[in-house]
Amino acid sequence: MRDVFDHIDRHAQEYVAELARLVRQPSVAAQGVGLEECARLVAEMLGEAGARVRVYRLPGAAPLVYGEFPGRSRKTLLVYEHYDVQPVEPLEEWESDPFEPEVRDGRIFGRGVADTKGNLVARLCAVRAYRQVRGELPVTVKFLVEGEEEIGSPNLRRYADAYPDLFRADGCLWESGGKDHQDVPNLYLGVKGICYVELVARGANRDLHSSMATIVPNPAWRLVWALRTLKDENERVLIEGFYDAVEEPSPQEEEWLRRIAAGRDDAALLRDLGLDRFLLDLSGVELLKRHLYQPTCTICGLVAGYGGEGSKTVLPKAARAKIDFRLVPRQRAEDILHKLRAHLARHGFADLEVVPMGLEDPARTPPDSEIVRVVAAAAREVYGKEPVIYPMMAATGPMDVVCGRFGTPAVGTGVGYPGTNVHAPNENIRIRDYLEGIKHVALVLERFGTLEG
Amino acid sequence: MRDVFDHIDRHAQEYVAELARLVRQPSVAAQGVGLEECARLVAEMLGEAGARVRVYRLPGAAPLVYGEFPGRSRKTLLVYEHYDVQPVEPLEEWESDPFEPEVRDGRIFGRGVADTKGNLVARLCAVRAYRQVRGELPVTVKFLVEGEEEIGSPNLRRYADAYPDLFRADGCLWESGGKDHQDVPNLYLGVKGICYVELVARGANRDLHSSMATIVPNPAWRLVWALRTLKDENERVLIEGFYDAVEEPSPQEEEWLRRIAAGRDDAALLRDLGLDRFLLDLSGVELLKRHLYQPTCTICGLVAGYGGEGSKTVLPKAARAKIDFRLVPRQRAEDILHKLRAHLARHGFADLEVVPMGLEDPARTPPDSEIVRVVAAAAREVYGKEPVIYPMMAATGPMDVVCGRFGTPAVGTGVGYPGTNVHAPNENIRIRDYLEGIKHVALVLERFGTLEG
Repeated sequence: MRDVFDHIDRHAQEYVAELARLVRQPSVAAQGVGLEECARLVAEMLGEAGARVRVYRLPGAAPLVYGEFPGRSRKTLLVYEHYDVQPVEPLEEWESDPFEPEVRDGRIFGRGVADTKGNLVARLCAVRAYRQVRGELPVTVKFLVEGEEEIGSPNLRRYADAYPDLFRADGCLWESGGKDHQDVPNLYLGVKGICYVELVARGANRDLHSSMATIVPNPAWRLVWALRTLKDENERVLIEGFYDAVEEPSPQEEEWLRRIAAGRDDAALLRDLGLDRFLLDLSGVELLKRHLYQPTCTICGLVAGYGGEGSKTVLPKAARAKIDFRLVPRQRAEDILHKLRAHLARHGFADLEVVPMGLEDPARTPPDSEIVRVVAAAAREVYGKEPVIYPMMAATGPMDVVCGRFGTPAVGTGVGYPGTNVHAPNENIRIRDYLEGIKHVALVLERFGTLEG
Repeated sequence: MRDVFDHIDRHAQEYVAELARLVRQPSVAAQGVGLEECARLVAEMLGEAGARVRVYRLPGAAPLVYGEFPGRSRKTLLVYEHYDVQPVEPLEEWESDPFEPEVRDGRIFGRGVADTKGNLVARLCAVRAYRQVRGELPVTVKFLVEGEEEIGSPNLRRYADAYPDLFRADGCLWESGGKDHQDVPNLYLGVKGICYVELVARGANRDLHSSMATIVPNPAWRLVWALRTLKDENERVLIEGFYDAVEEPSPQEEEWLRRIAAGRDDAALLRDLGLDRFLLDLSGVELLKRHLYQPTCTICGLVAGYGGEGSKTVLPKAARAKIDFRLVPRQRAEDILHKLRAHLARHGFADLEVVPMGLEDPARTPPDSEIVRVVAAAAREVYGKEPVIYPMMAATGPMDVVCGRFGTPAVGTGVGYPGTNVHAPNENIRIRDYLEGIKHVALVLERFGTLEG
């Protein structure tokens, strides 16, 4: 692969420019910003790389971009990606414009460089490099690029129902992964599910002077009291039946986790996060078990009344909490939503609105799948280190919709590192990781094509 | 007074324009916006009306504007006002620019028209009208106009210590009051105190992807848990010793409250607020007792993580609550702050920052004071209705600093009505009330001057 890798090194600057081109196009699904434009740009970039491209549309959904590169064998590799990104707020904490990518200190900064425009363009560049150096690809490569991942892929199931052939493949490169604190590549064989809701409490028909709080109900207090019934100070979720489907890792998985934990540098992670200790003072394999095998109930946002500088004496008319539940295998998002509603009603909070904003089920890939072996072997070769394979990632994605239902094994790999600030201000990747990621994918194309399916 | 009243009617348009002139100047103390400019404008308007004006300054404080109009007798009437206003957020809920006053439907809309630029300009116009028609004022009138009332007058005590002579008077017109749902003028003889704090919980050094919530503490949960210890669902404040200094109304006060309650139209208030019932299902005299004689603990603002449209899966690095405690006579703001801190420490929340943002003690005026009798009699004459005198208002002001310590009796009266939206979007007053308010103050000048001191 020397030839392809050299080609990649020679075109490094061009590949960074391609990423910048995509990052420059805002595409915030949560705010409905720039999705159509970004879909068109992704289609254009796929077309320029030589793919047969089609943009699929369903009413009320962001476009789904599909690009197919023909290959020598009948084997098919699916590349799952998304062109949408998280909101940029709080904007004031960015050191450079989130949509004007900037290279500083060997890193490229901008919203989506890590999650996941960097992975999308790296994979596209890998295909381009391979085709330019070698001509034909060893396998058919299908890029499936959706535009609503960051809001829970609410319409992807409809696309999968309408166009199942786009989804079928022998293996899938999932959209995320990267290096850990010791620069070891981490691969992921599953995703958690999610149930994201907004809780809304309402009071008077307008904000009032706070002196009225003697006699007018305060929705911010209603919200606090309701939230308090969801989780206690020991981090135990109190929703009836929440843990029913949660399973402890099997003895084999325990052993697997112990091996992973032994190699982790949790002290570095603590330093990086500016923390003295992890939640509940956990460490080692217990920490990892909780991270991968336990569901969560997280307040992602609180909004009520006045949040600006200084003081304002106002009695809010409404209070909102955004909450995500990350779900582990066998939990189901619809079921958790149902249990949340039942819990609130049972505790006297039936007056709170529960607005579902994203439901996804968890998914897993068996560790002995071919694509897993290929991706691990290619990582070993490109990074010169034994990759760590995680049975699950703590994060979420529509892996059940894209792969699970079609029986496609999927493995998460990518160009991230612990300082990428995914979903946060100053999102960035290291250019070195980006170029290595391109080589890694190029090698996966080669190896997946030469192994027997 | 026919002559003065006719003059006021003839100059109605000019008086509305004067108010618009002052409202047009933003002056948001919480955000440090426009205070210097607004102080200069108030000084200019006082000067134009014929006052001897001086602007006082202390380091780190907004300017204090003082204007004195000489009078025939040795008696002195203090007019306490403030030129600062509340923040305008949420801006999107205003139907017109908060700093571009607009007349619609017999009302004038803009931030501060009710609280309290409308009262300030009404009083100034009353003095102007009286002087233009009658020449000399019957009493010396001192305008004391501060610029930090909406953030709890943090520097007014220093001004009072430095320039006590400015404050001394035989009676004081306090800045707020208005008509109730039956168009009956309401007067107020006291104010509650306030202890306004921001509670801040902190987590990691940056916002994180919410999948990290398995192992990284979430400050939004810390905040919820801490808040839950402050007040229970029966609206009982749980801070140890919070109610120690709270007194029930005396039998005379109970009788007074019964008379007031009998005349109130609480159903109209409910309709106006879009509510089915008041807090704890209270009504009548019990409602009024709670409103005037009970302290509060109010969440005025909650901020954590993502508060925008749609969903964002973020683990916040910090969470903040703005809380005001409204205090009744004999409670002391410093003492409540101390008790709050002790409470949080006792319940395991010593890690939360408690940032004091405004401390004021309550104050009361004896109901048989001369200024009370004069203001009530003038109201009877101008409004043609028996005014309702409240022993207290539920709101707060620096009455203890301005009047209490100097033994000056103070009475709250003003140009408001139940739909003024004080501290909220679309703040407004009715032009009719504004003109009547000018007449009322003109008559107070006349009567206070002719009664023996």
